[in-house]
Amino acid sequence: MTKASLIVIGSELTRGIIQDKHTILVSHELSKMGIHFSESVVIPDDGTIREVIGALLRNNNIVLLTGGLGPTTDDMTRSAIAEAAGVELVRDEGAWNHLLETLKDRAYGANEKQAYIPKGFNLIPNPNGTAPGFWGEVKGTLVVSMPGPPREMEPMFRSSVLPLLRKNLGIKEEERDEYSTFLISEAKLEELTKEADPSLDWGTRFQDYRISLYVSGGDEEERQRAIGKLRALTGKKRVVDGDKTALGILVEDLKKRGETISCAESCTGGLAASNLTSLPGSSLYMMGSVTSYFLSVKERVLGVKKDTLDRYGAVSEECALEMAEGVRNLISSDWAFSITGVAGPDKSEEKEVGTVCLGFSGKDRKPVSVTIRFFSYGRESIRRRSTAASFILMKAYMDGEDIREIVEGWKVF
Amino acid sequence: MTKASLIVIGSELTRGIIQDKHTILVSHELSKMGIHFSESVVIPDDGTIREVIGALLRNNNIVLLTGGLGPTTDDMTRSAIAEAAGVELVRDEGAWNHLLETLKDRAYGANEKQAYIPKGFNLIPNPNGTAPGFWGEVKGTLVVSMPGPPREMEPMFRSSVLPLLRKNLGIKEEERDEYSTFLISEAKLEELTKEADPSLDWGTRFQDYRISLYVSGGDEEERQRAIGKLRALTGKKRVVDGDKTALGILVEDLKKRGETISCAESCTGGLAASNLTSLPGSSLYMMGSVTSYFLSVKERVLGVKKDTLDRYGAVSEECALEMAEGVRNLISSDWAFSITGVAGPDKSEEKEVGTVCLGFSGKDRKPVSVTIRFFSYGRESIRRRSTAASFILMKAYMDGEDIREIVEGWKVF
Repeated sequence: MTKASLIVIGSELTRGIIQDKHTILVSHELSKMGIHFSESVVIPDDGTIREVIGALLRNNNIVLLTGGLGPTTDDMTRSAIAEAAGVELVRDEGAWNHLLETLKDRAYGANEKQAYIPKGFNLIPNPNGTAPGFWGEVKGTLVVSMPGPPREMEPMFRSSVLPLLRKNLGIKEEERDEYSTFLISEAKLEELTKEADPSLDWGTRFQDYRISLYVSGGDEEERQRAIGKLRALTGKKRVVDGDKTALGILVEDLKKRGETISCAESCTGGLAASNLTSLPGSSLYMMGSVTSYFLSVKERVLGVKKDTLDRYGAVSEECALEMAEGVRNLISSDWAFSITGVAGPDKSEEKEVGTVCLGFSGKDRKPVSVTIRFFSYGRESIRRRSTAASFILMKAYMDGEDIREIVEGWKVF
Repeated sequence: MTKASLIVIGSELTRGIIQDKHTILVSHELSKMGIHFSESVVIPDDGTIREVIGALLRNNNIVLLTGGLGPTTDDMTRSAIAEAAGVELVRDEGAWNHLLETLKDRAYGANEKQAYIPKGFNLIPNPNGTAPGFWGEVKGTLVVSMPGPPREMEPMFRSSVLPLLRKNLGIKEEERDEYSTFLISEAKLEELTKEADPSLDWGTRFQDYRISLYVSGGDEEERQRAIGKLRALTGKKRVVDGDKTALGILVEDLKKRGETISCAESCTGGLAASNLTSLPGSSLYMMGSVTSYFLSVKERVLGVKKDTLDRYGAVSEECALEMAEGVRNLISSDWAFSITGVAGPDKSEEKEVGTVCLGFSGKDRKPVSVTIRFFSYGRESIRRRSTAASFILMKAYMDGEDIREIVEGWKVF
């Protein structure tokens, strides 16, 4: 296993003035390459590096450093590395010429230091600043030093350091497939990917309303088979190709059709509408909505029958159906959906927290409604998952799919 | 010199999935207390802590840790600390009772581990999660362990750990006043606080929909005078005492009155309703809402006159007034407000992006509407600020205040 660590140097970082951006970038990219990222150490500009570098060199195959390359006396990264390598600092002519070009007369004096690198090390050009990076070996460990400012470090890391690491480690540019998953918790998703194929490399990233899923390793066919298996485990519509949101998928379809939508919300209380109006240009397809939090609003505004509310309650497929039909009639949209459920923290009408009914209505389409039982991770989470579910199922309903069958196949929440 | 270091534990952090937020918070607060923050080490959940903790204990007076307190087997912070201290882990009855209350039957099993702390250590309660923190001394170094999730760690750090450090170091509790500010950008707020009194210590913290403002230094009277000056600079209702949200202030008042509310939204498209239904128990006061994104919905559902739309457009005080009256009639709530504006990115009806009209209606109260011109920081920001403004002004309207005068006094956005 290849192990790597990062040393982030900068007193602004240890005085809480600026946020370290290097750890997330480096650890993310190295993890993707299959390197074990074992440690990131954030230290001030005060010579602490001398204490830290020894242990990290012993325990890692790769040590990356950022910062401490400036012209001021408290920047001692280059001398600490030279010391650890047991070599002296020498002036690199390429670096010196770059300095002269950039700074002209000002290159002499304090800045001159920036043209020095440990003897035997290789220069990494810095098109965005005066301090170049450099790399070399210290007792079998690859050491790479980069400047601290993110606008200098990030381009250097991506265009020079990552290719250098790949070359050194003999890593081919990785083949990686990306998917978007809905209504599956991160813990559950990890469990299911292991079940689908434990030999592949799976990665997840939680984003608002969805989890991105990455898979690499194996060959194309193996990865396809694994995704097929994952889809069978999760049920339909929950693992889609590429970087997509449930909202984006629905909106794309509405725009393509040139059709309009509306919704009626109870437990989500405006969250679905707020999402449907969040993108620029949403006035092309989103006509409006009704939040019917009180029973009286369901009855009087949406036309839900009193008898329905009395017999089945507000959280029922019957009520969801009438809400969807009601809002479509009221607003005259092509399509409509409804959400009514128990977001908690308390039960309602003797129905458990997490019970959510969704209704769907469209011109020339038989209305349909379903019940989903979400595991309760709290009120806001139930509201968010209900919203995502309504978008996914609305799109399926528009495509003429069997909504009830889809929901029945959703085993895991 | 008192030296402190931080160990941030979490494999999501070393795989580049989430950004470490603890280093900047802890180093910032400790630096303010005059403590030298010497190192922050970010490591995975894999036992690396055993290698790291020894050196840090030797070199620091204070070692803080976050993360690694979860119920799964890879969370080994508590055992690593116990090992370093040479004590065993013992079940803390307070922690156990908290677990039982929170998780009931699920407290047994993996979670039970969370009730164990190193013998001789002291519990730090965690009101926002299941894993408590704990602190104690290891070979003369103060060791404090906190949970990893920022929404648990941050309140614990501010309300328990900082006072603990102050007490241990003999630092006087700083006199600090807290305010909540609305509809002012962080940069502008910093400028205004300097103008109000540059000799005081001002701190800001951006939270959803508001910025918290802290002031310390000087004496009580000086701080009061500075806040008075700040209020004069910002206009009414934008700097309130204590830790408050605009939503919280409105909801508290509605509950006290035992009255109900509804709203009609255009550019915010459900965001205000979604907020009004976000808190448990919102069915006591929030009756419902209409999102009227299309003109036809404004006309047919809310009863806005065609003539009003033709003459003044949808983004007008006239339309806002009729929307507020219309939704209150439709839903039969005690109070109602409306939001109609240009969220962008494009102009609408020749009105600039950031132009937002708000209307207010109440039984036995003359309806009123106003225009706010927000500086445009983007679509979502205009939607959010419109929502916050509607809550602040709704409450003022309920109190019988002059809404137009308030908005005219709002000079800075």
